[in-house]
Amino acid sequence: MKLAMVNDKLVPMEELDPAHLDRGTYFGDGVYEVLRSYNGKLFALEEHMARFAASMAALRITGIEVGVVRERVLQAFKAAGLVNAKIYFHVTRGSAPRNHTWKKDIVPNFFLTISEVPDSSKEKAKGITVCTHPDLRWKRCDIKSLNLLPNILARQDAADRGCDEAILVNDAGQITEGAGSAFFAIIDGALCTAPLGANILPSITRHFLVKLAHNIGMPIREQCVTPEQAAHADELFIAVTTKDIVPIVKFDGTPIGQGVPGPRVKALMAEFQKFTV
Amino acid sequence: MKLAMVNDKLVPMEELDPAHLDRGTYFGDGVYEVLRSYNGKLFALEEHMARFAASMAALRITGIEVGVVRERVLQAFKAAGLVNAKIYFHVTRGSAPRNHTWKKDIVPNFFLTISEVPDSSKEKAKGITVCTHPDLRWKRCDIKSLNLLPNILARQDAADRGCDEAILVNDAGQITEGAGSAFFAIIDGALCTAPLGANILPSITRHFLVKLAHNIGMPIREQCVTPEQAAHADELFIAVTTKDIVPIVKFDGTPIGQGVPGPRVKALMAEFQKFTV
Repeated sequence: MKLAMVNDKLVPMEELDPAHLDRGTYFGDGVYEVLRSYNGKLFALEEHMARFAASMAALRITGIEVGVVRERVLQAFKAAGLVNAKIYFHVTRGSAPRNHTWKKDIVPNFFLTISEVPDSSKEKAKGITVCTHPDLRWKRCDIKSLNLLPNILARQDAADRGCDEAILVNDAGQITEGAGSAFFAIIDGALCTAPLGANILPSITRHFLVKLAHNIGMPIREQCVTPEQAAHADELFIAVTTKDIVPIVKFDGTPIGQGVPGPRVKALMAEFQKFTV
Repeated sequence: MKLAMVNDKLVPMEELDPAHLDRGTYFGDGVYEVLRSYNGKLFALEEHMARFAASMAALRITGIEVGVVRERVLQAFKAAGLVNAKIYFHVTRGSAPRNHTWKKDIVPNFFLTISEVPDSSKEKAKGITVCTHPDLRWKRCDIKSLNLLPNILARQDAADRGCDEAILVNDAGQITEGAGSAFFAIIDGALCTAPLGANILPSITRHFLVKLAHNIGMPIREQCVTPEQAAHADELFIAVTTKDIVPIVKFDGTPIGQGVPGPRVKALMAEFQKFTV
């Protein structure tokens, strides 16, 4: 007799909700996106959909059109009626009895949540503290997948040490990115950030930052920095969809600059706002 | 208004089944085990429970006693009434609105399936074919976690190339293990397998193999081999709970030995059976 057990309850296998056979849970076999609206307008929807399509292609998830996903995002956004909305959605390869390989006709599962963007005005005004953590992730961090265990462990470790974000450092001693954000340093007036590659996520906010640095004439150096260089940088910040730019005022216990958000990050924040109106 | 969407259906957030907020799906934040019975008797239950406890401790998952998990496994095994049962179970950190960090009082989710062990007598008698694949996994493969994307992608790639298992090769050009199995080579009469460490799973079947190699006087070398060395080995095999020992007869297209299961792997298979009666 085939059985399942959900918490302390035995269930015949044929009565089991297929949600429990989701390859998203068994293997993290799925991809996700987080996007937001500013003042009733979705920000960078097409950029998020393009990255989502790339993540799906990298995992060879088929059976759901990106157009269908976009329509569902728009439908949920309209139904929720939120001015500043945070939208999370994922697609997993589908539900099936556990097996490493998948069948071609498996039907993907779609899931979305929409809620108010948490207020980050205080963090943005005062800046945050960060600490470094070894980058233990796999070799395809460019795919926005549901395999996020190293990310959450690093973030929790940072939180336990009283920090807001973990900054990941690879075996070569170089900073890749944050556990849930892109990382930037301003050194000698130039904006330094890790070059795109398999070891970091192609951050949408990073994409806009590179544009706006160009707009305000700030030189850009797409190269990794070390924790040592970061601790002595003029200014530091992270970029993340839900908060766009957040200044870092302390790095591994070392105050950055004057220990308050610096003039260049403030200029970038002001400039970023122009994208969101 | 907070909303969720499950496939094409909008749901108010407060009506959403907590199964959809499982950190197991959001982050792969959980650990699992697969064990089996031989002739009505669970094999190596305590070894599996000990590894499970170690995996939970490594991820700092608390709130469920290992004793409770063991009782549920035994309850399901009894209820299913299968002589040769395959039991899969996992514990995730619990369900909560998506956030990288977790609250201390989060309640873990337990899930189990039990079914007949698939027949592997043909594979065991004839041997299998394998091909190599880059080991793209994270740096804590000793934890039996739900972050298995690199494993399933490697296995699917192997299947697409007509092979039964993918053998993972790290950046140093050394074989770590299979996508879902431990890997062994017999070279100059000695049993060679990767040493335990953060880069491989501490396989229970490997544990018994080391014992039985000792019992039959076969020297053991806990050292990695290269694909080149593997292709020229006397004999090769994988070890996995559901099938114990399975001979490899072709490695990256090269026949191993005479292209049929060799005498030493047959001796190990015969010896292994003694553990299971």
